[in-house]
Amino acid sequence: MPKEKPLFYDHRSMLKERVGVAGVRSIDLVRLSKRLEKAQAKLKLAAADGSVGWLTVPERRADCREVKSLARKMSAGLKTLVVIGIGGSDLGAKTLVRALKPASRGLDVRFVGSNTDPEEIADLLRTVDLKTALLNVVSKSGGTIEPMSTFLLLRDRLMRRVGRKSHARQVVATTDRTSGVLRTIADREGYATLPVPDDVGGRFSVLTPVGLFPAACAGIAVDGLLRGAVEVRDSFLSTSVGRNDALNFAGLHYLGYARRGQRITVLMPYAARLDLLSSWFRQLWGESLGKEINVDGRIVGHGLTPVAALGATDQHSQIQLYNEGPFDKMITFIEVGRMREDFSLPNPFPDLEGVSYLAGKSFGEILRAERRATAMALEDNGRPNGVLHIPEISPETVGGLMTFLMLSTAVMAELLDVNAYNQPGVEKGKRIISALLGRKGFKL
Amino acid sequence: MPKEKPLFYDHRSMLKERVGVAGVRSIDLVRLSKRLEKAQAKLKLAAADGSVGWLTVPERRADCREVKSLARKMSAGLKTLVVIGIGGSDLGAKTLVRALKPASRGLDVRFVGSNTDPEEIADLLRTVDLKTALLNVVSKSGGTIEPMSTFLLLRDRLMRRVGRKSHARQVVATTDRTSGVLRTIADREGYATLPVPDDVGGRFSVLTPVGLFPAACAGIAVDGLLRGAVEVRDSFLSTSVGRNDALNFAGLHYLGYARRGQRITVLMPYAARLDLLSSWFRQLWGESLGKEINVDGRIVGHGLTPVAALGATDQHSQIQLYNEGPFDKMITFIEVGRMREDFSLPNPFPDLEGVSYLAGKSFGEILRAERRATAMALEDNGRPNGVLHIPEISPETVGGLMTFLMLSTAVMAELLDVNAYNQPGVEKGKRIISALLGRKGFKL
Repeated sequence: MPKEKPLFYDHRSMLKERVGVAGVRSIDLVRLSKRLEKAQAKLKLAAADGSVGWLTVPERRADCREVKSLARKMSAGLKTLVVIGIGGSDLGAKTLVRALKPASRGLDVRFVGSNTDPEEIADLLRTVDLKTALLNVVSKSGGTIEPMSTFLLLRDRLMRRVGRKSHARQVVATTDRTSGVLRTIADREGYATLPVPDDVGGRFSVLTPVGLFPAACAGIAVDGLLRGAVEVRDSFLSTSVGRNDALNFAGLHYLGYARRGQRITVLMPYAARLDLLSSWFRQLWGESLGKEINVDGRIVGHGLTPVAALGATDQHSQIQLYNEGPFDKMITFIEVGRMREDFSLPNPFPDLEGVSYLAGKSFGEILRAERRATAMALEDNGRPNGVLHIPEISPETVGGLMTFLMLSTAVMAELLDVNAYNQPGVEKGKRIISALLGRKGFKL
Repeated sequence: MPKEKPLFYDHRSMLKERVGVAGVRSIDLVRLSKRLEKAQAKLKLAAADGSVGWLTVPERRADCREVKSLARKMSAGLKTLVVIGIGGSDLGAKTLVRALKPASRGLDVRFVGSNTDPEEIADLLRTVDLKTALLNVVSKSGGTIEPMSTFLLLRDRLMRRVGRKSHARQVVATTDRTSGVLRTIADREGYATLPVPDDVGGRFSVLTPVGLFPAACAGIAVDGLLRGAVEVRDSFLSTSVGRNDALNFAGLHYLGYARRGQRITVLMPYAARLDLLSSWFRQLWGESLGKEINVDGRIVGHGLTPVAALGATDQHSQIQLYNEGPFDKMITFIEVGRMREDFSLPNPFPDLEGVSYLAGKSFGEILRAERRATAMALEDNGRPNGVLHIPEISPETVGGLMTFLMLSTAVMAELLDVNAYNQPGVEKGKRIISALLGRKGFKL
């Protein structure tokens, strides 16, 4: 096991040699090499000429400095950060805060605005004193109903609490540099602002100010995130097909999907603090690859349904289905080499064999044994599964892991011949909502 | 709209007449009547002769009285309830607490033990003072590694905090009446206990002491849960096929699965407080129906993969895929008629059309419009979807909703000819874990 590698993908149990007919034939993966190389070359070119923004984001150090300095300035004297965003505007930040927030540093962070559920907002208003809260409203266009309606209400309550004039000192708007209604409001009210880069779509924006500002306020070392991202990206761009983990990940999922009809992609970290990584991945994988039309305008109706699972918890919920149900899934575990904190089990009942065998074991050790046992059972039942290994949960490894998944998604889109960066299927619903709410110019 | 009905299922957009070829033909549902009637008759018999325990659980008033009285007694002077369980031993309680916990009553509730992640346990120990905590360890057999290892550690920490003798006053074990290692420990230590009924499997146990005790400690009116359950069950048992919502729900999902290959079942409540209902449903639907062998011992490999989604949040994550991806899904929304708290939007920028159209609207109104718009877009794209309507979130409606979903699952198992109540596919992994951890008598 190459333990020194920061991130590696063990895909042996994705192969037919290991799991039988539901697995991918090694020879098919080899035969895909040319297409994988082509996808890699395309991304390499895009990274060099800057035409795909998210690939170069980790190098935008000026953005990062601006984020850190604003976070320091705006957090001073405050207690809670309230992030108001939805989808690409909050899932990345949620993932970072959940995985990495230090217990002893940074603001508490709450997320609202990804829903227009008044009960959630009422709960926030009951439990957060807006006098010591910083609002970070995140929307590129300012046209998204959920965060904007939430922001309008919270802004109103904040003004009632601290006064019309002072409230602007407690708002940061992350939005388009020049256009949109949130930009207009921010300029008019004198809010501090951070840019959503023009060339980075929401679901690829976690390492822009969209994700970095909440992370910095939460006390997370954002430079580490970027270092980890650069390392994984550069390794991807320079490693030849065959030994390239992200190419293998995409290639195997493509073959399982296209040749075996395995339309369900399960991401199952064995680490509670990575549970929201799966929620972030759901959007990335689902929205990027779920497309009716391919790049040539042909109707293809592609899509792999991402499923978020959590180990060991979901062993007692989903593993029955994964072991015995239809062969329609590929499963990826995430295993963490060592936990940041751990405990050994006491031995209070040495005479009771039903619990005494656990004595002296650490929770981390048990968790890794559970992961291994689940994989072995699945393999035994002929179910394709792979493992992403990281040595620990840190800004570097999380930045790397997210970059790995973005790269894999981009390669997968190349293999499926779909545009990873649009979402035409969301627009119709948005137009209908506007019409139902009586917005001018929108009709059913 | 029959607004006075406590729960109803609008399935019109599941039908071919509405959504085209991916929908179920009405005539096929009619042709299924005989089998649906048979399933209903079987459950009716089981409810009458008591052979399927969960069907009669809401009538076990003695259990309910015991739960309420113990909750009152054990909660006195304490602040936090720590529930230690996994799968069927905690998902039901989590759902109830999340949906129904009143802000001003009852203990705070934390859930651990559904994972052996030491970072989660460290977080609990940092933020909960065990001196004012009540531990509720839930395991029928006491043989489940995750809750038992968590309990052994927390018990040790509790004893250090309050002393060996006193600690027993702060532990309630919900376990088998007579056997298992947790029963042995509880008897030896003098813990208060509550029974896990012999005749009710974990994923159907939410209305037994397993779910009711945490709910009662949290300040939830547990009688209301049972009333809602009885009402929905009795309505199911007495309503003829055709007008029977749970039979329709199961029948439509069966036909979509069997005739159209729609193996993915999405549950998407438009209410943040119902998000964990989807997690509970995932286990119920996934474990009950995902079976390699049918009741005649034939290999069938059945299974519908449940996906938990949340409206409006996942409109910006999954709806692109649902609208444009493969026709492999059936979607069920949950719509709540009125929210328990609501807010009207202010109009601070009347000149900015991009936000002023929201002025005066309530969040609940916007949320319902979003649900409707999403359904209309899906229908327009030929995607089958249905809606479960409840008038509000209350103990009665949540008890009813969970009963509705258990009934639908049981009927679905009848249609698929599988045993809803076992989970053989989990056993292999459990044996391997025991072997990896060196438990006596277990080998790889």
